[in-house]
Amino acid sequence: MSYQAPLRDMRFVLHELFDVAGHCERLGNGLDRELIDGVLEEAAAFTGNEIAPLNRNSDEEGCQLVDGNVSTPKGFRAAYQQFVDNGWASMTGPTEFGGQGFPQLVAFAFHEMLMATSLSFRVYSGLTEGAVLALHKHGSEALKRDYLAKMVSGQWTGTMCLTEPQAGTDLALLRTKAEPQADGSYKVSGSKIFISGGEQDFSENIVHLVLARLPDAPAGVKGISLLLVPKFVANTDGSLSEKNALSCGAIEHKMGIKGASTCVMNFDGATGWLIGEANQGLACMFTMMNDARFQVGLQGLGIGEAAFQGALRYARERLQSRGLTGAQQPEKAADPIIVHPDVRRMLLTQKSLVEGCRMLAAYTARQLDLEHGAEEPAARKAAGKRAALLIPIVKAFFTDMGQEVASHAVQVYGGHGFIREWGMEQLMRDSRITQLYEGTNGIQALDLIRRKLLGDGGAELSALIGEFSALCDAQAQRPALSAMARTVQARLGEWRELTTEVIALSQRDAQEIGAVSVDFLQYSAYVLLAGFWLQAAATAQDALDAGSGEAAFYQAKLHSATFFLRRVLPRASSHREALLGGAECLMAMPEQSFAF
Amino acid sequence: MSYQAPLRDMRFVLHELFDVAGHCERLGNGLDRELIDGVLEEAAAFTGNEIAPLNRNSDEEGCQLVDGNVSTPKGFRAAYQQFVDNGWASMTGPTEFGGQGFPQLVAFAFHEMLMATSLSFRVYSGLTEGAVLALHKHGSEALKRDYLAKMVSGQWTGTMCLTEPQAGTDLALLRTKAEPQADGSYKVSGSKIFISGGEQDFSENIVHLVLARLPDAPAGVKGISLLLVPKFVANTDGSLSEKNALSCGAIEHKMGIKGASTCVMNFDGATGWLIGEANQGLACMFTMMNDARFQVGLQGLGIGEAAFQGALRYARERLQSRGLTGAQQPEKAADPIIVHPDVRRMLLTQKSLVEGCRMLAAYTARQLDLEHGAEEPAARKAAGKRAALLIPIVKAFFTDMGQEVASHAVQVYGGHGFIREWGMEQLMRDSRITQLYEGTNGIQALDLIRRKLLGDGGAELSALIGEFSALCDAQAQRPALSAMARTVQARLGEWRELTTEVIALSQRDAQEIGAVSVDFLQYSAYVLLAGFWLQAAATAQDALDAGSGEAAFYQAKLHSATFFLRRVLPRASSHREALLGGAECLMAMPEQSFAF
Repeated sequence: MSYQAPLRDMRFVLHELFDVAGHCERLGNGLDRELIDGVLEEAAAFTGNEIAPLNRNSDEEGCQLVDGNVSTPKGFRAAYQQFVDNGWASMTGPTEFGGQGFPQLVAFAFHEMLMATSLSFRVYSGLTEGAVLALHKHGSEALKRDYLAKMVSGQWTGTMCLTEPQAGTDLALLRTKAEPQADGSYKVSGSKIFISGGEQDFSENIVHLVLARLPDAPAGVKGISLLLVPKFVANTDGSLSEKNALSCGAIEHKMGIKGASTCVMNFDGATGWLIGEANQGLACMFTMMNDARFQVGLQGLGIGEAAFQGALRYARERLQSRGLTGAQQPEKAADPIIVHPDVRRMLLTQKSLVEGCRMLAAYTARQLDLEHGAEEPAARKAAGKRAALLIPIVKAFFTDMGQEVASHAVQVYGGHGFIREWGMEQLMRDSRITQLYEGTNGIQALDLIRRKLLGDGGAELSALIGEFSALCDAQAQRPALSAMARTVQARLGEWRELTTEVIALSQRDAQEIGAVSVDFLQYSAYVLLAGFWLQAAATAQDALDAGSGEAAFYQAKLHSATFFLRRVLPRASSHREALLGGAECLMAMPEQSFAF
Repeated sequence: MSYQAPLRDMRFVLHELFDVAGHCERLGNGLDRELIDGVLEEAAAFTGNEIAPLNRNSDEEGCQLVDGNVSTPKGFRAAYQQFVDNGWASMTGPTEFGGQGFPQLVAFAFHEMLMATSLSFRVYSGLTEGAVLALHKHGSEALKRDYLAKMVSGQWTGTMCLTEPQAGTDLALLRTKAEPQADGSYKVSGSKIFISGGEQDFSENIVHLVLARLPDAPAGVKGISLLLVPKFVANTDGSLSEKNALSCGAIEHKMGIKGASTCVMNFDGATGWLIGEANQGLACMFTMMNDARFQVGLQGLGIGEAAFQGALRYARERLQSRGLTGAQQPEKAADPIIVHPDVRRMLLTQKSLVEGCRMLAAYTARQLDLEHGAEEPAARKAAGKRAALLIPIVKAFFTDMGQEVASHAVQVYGGHGFIREWGMEQLMRDSRITQLYEGTNGIQALDLIRRKLLGDGGAELSALIGEFSALCDAQAQRPALSAMARTVQARLGEWRELTTEVIALSQRDAQEIGAVSVDFLQYSAYVLLAGFWLQAAATAQDALDAGSGEAAFYQAKLHSATFFLRRVLPRASSHREALLGGAECLMAMPEQSFAF
């Protein structure tokens, strides 16, 4: 499937909305606008030319497990080598271990492109980056010395081994054991499932980060430790020992992302080392949770962009029927289907959701950068709180969005949407996992209410609402934007009231937390996107007022903003009404009465 | 995947809501309650024991095309033979050709079971029944004599050959030609795509109904004729001639329903005969359109029931985390996930949508029966109008519902939902086609506005609203139901106003037809289901008031009704707001501005 990275929109978001050059200066790295644009152009070329062509075949071919070895689809190995050789793997890695230290506000755009061109291919490197984060933050100097540089470069990959058959969402139930040895290492034994990239054929080593219990660890989540368990133990001279006592026992047959190996990993007394303190494994994992969930959000965004591009291309080319007001292109046998209001409704829904999410992604990336890299501790803390509030929304809403937008693409293609060679149905299948892994979207919504909202009594959310409200006040003064600003302002007021209500409900009855959670997250996301669309409209209007030579681009931003407010934002109403429906109607049905 | 036909709910709908025995008496056939219940039980056994076990493998194995022959998945052939031998194929067929003449109000329940257990398997016989309808209504006596009895019995199957590469939604563009021969037959030449069951390995003949143009036919849809083109021409003595000049050129590789062959059919001067008048092909097809679209609606319903059952089973068994108010089953390692409000939200959404759609399906089936079989012409006409109004809603809403409910099932399973062996992701993939074929759901929505609403100025819809409004008035008097009745009554009033508004908008600007259509259809469906849920609640309350021994069953109906009104019906609000957003925000964007 052909893919054109949305470079103009990315520049709009990075430069015009979020001043990425100023951001980089504040973070103290040497990236300027020209360099950033250059990197994005190279990223577009790499993903469009090298990765996109692999995606369709990777779905057909999938991964194979033979004698414990996993072969990945044709071309993955060579593409991964390019990915490493060209420095894409090390883009965000820590500079003291050979990384390039790019901020997320730049890197997210590249990662979106990767997601759009092959979710399967991206899974391997995405998890490696997560493992790098955890190891860098919590690993001993010896472990970092022996493993980190090669993981940063991408020469070695990393995995996250959390889930066990009986322990998915509920990690308290996990059973994998780690027995301490005299030399300070551990023998790790147990079976993990759903391990993405647990085996593959393109890196010389695979570094597993494994959650396990030490002997006599407390029960539940307070007795979980994090261990580094490499496929091949690294010797201090950089050479590799013989294979560790671990193996891939099976690979899963899945709905999608078939090019990403999903492994059952068996650890049979494999040698490993503790990362961080004993029994602090979950805390160590949580370090990277925000980043990992942000990456999954970007998967939704990337799939959404790919689906929109596919649908738009087909809607422009496919000739079928005449417009409702008569022939629009009478010289052709029929009009292109983009003339139909309902096809435009689907395309504009895709476009306004994808571009809206891209703004929120950039905003969140900026917070993650400041959390990790701002000079002032207060700024780091503030950004961390903002990021923590937004991450569950980004993860859940973007991935629901990706699924919806992919489904619209299938619909625009009509019957051809169901046929594999056209590629749209693959986007639906690939993206469906994003709503499940790294914490299901239901879990994200619980996190939003329990930790983020009840955690501070809604203070952080209130601050966020206040910032958008100030934007509305300012834009309401401009005749071209006043109607839009009033619409958004009204929703912000409603959001504030609803938040108070949700907190009160949740404090009164713990069941309400789970009863309101998903609808509240969705509600919040739509209103948040409305705020960003107002910001985009304001920036576009500024450019038009200044006589920009790109009037069509900025005019399109105004059209998209109007569309979003009129045709997408209304969804917030039903989420609000539904969540106010209360927990009682969920809990009243006796379990045995669900079916007769 | 195990499947238990929802017999208790089906009996509730058939007997308690729609008095199926009285209905059969009115239609003049000899079916009584006992016989109907017996048939449903046999149907449950056949689908649960014979069809359900084939479904998972049929997805893995798919169909193969070798030298023009299509092989279907293991077990299909034997199951189809049973389907024929046990008389399931002929259930609704006309009695004068050996059919059993069951009304749709009974048959729909069996068909729902078939859809639930294998959509792929059902595709073949569903299309045959459609072909039987068209041939019975429009075919010459000679054609009926030579073909109909064996199609009714299921010994021969039928197909519908409409789509061509350039002609999908827009049949005006079709090019297949039919040249008249001296003997009254035609030579048919052209290529058709997306022909379900175009080839298979389990019937001795396949009777294709083909849309084609005669020489000098007018351009567009007024020049399309319907022809019967058999794989083997039937001789008058019942024997078969040699193979006709037609072949399967390819089969499609699809997202789902992989056990149903989807064929490219090439007609190379194949011998065929006109069905009905020349150039009246579309009108002949339209005869069976309501029935065919109703069947596709049932596919959504069946998939929805299967998905609900799968999700419920898992939610009861899967132990993970504790309830929000503390441990519910402290003796276990964790609580079953059905204790969580958000899991219940998904299950009750599934349940209330599926059971709601089942009521609407039965209501619609009843109208189809009366349209074809009521004694009084006025009753036939009235039922026909009502069915015509409802069919696009049933087709589009049920299939969207099936997709949503299947997706909830995947979500309830967490990561396991993405794994093929669990079967939930197959339901999503299989059901995705139902939103596309037999007229995309966007086309259904256009049909609702253009033909059904503007066709009579909203009179039929107004009558329907009036009937539910009277139900609300009556139930508002009962303390137990008055709140529910007021909620529904308010929505009915809103629906009436919205309809007036939609008609006015559509008459003012033809683009509004396409701008409001999908949201208006969705809005209408939710309010309609609310009406049926009030009816179900009223019937349940009657039973409870009468001291029924099945109090738990009826109480569950009241719970489900309450849940639907509080947590699902609010969706109507956002559809209303969105459609009132107007066409301008869809049409304002210049085509070249959709992407930069």
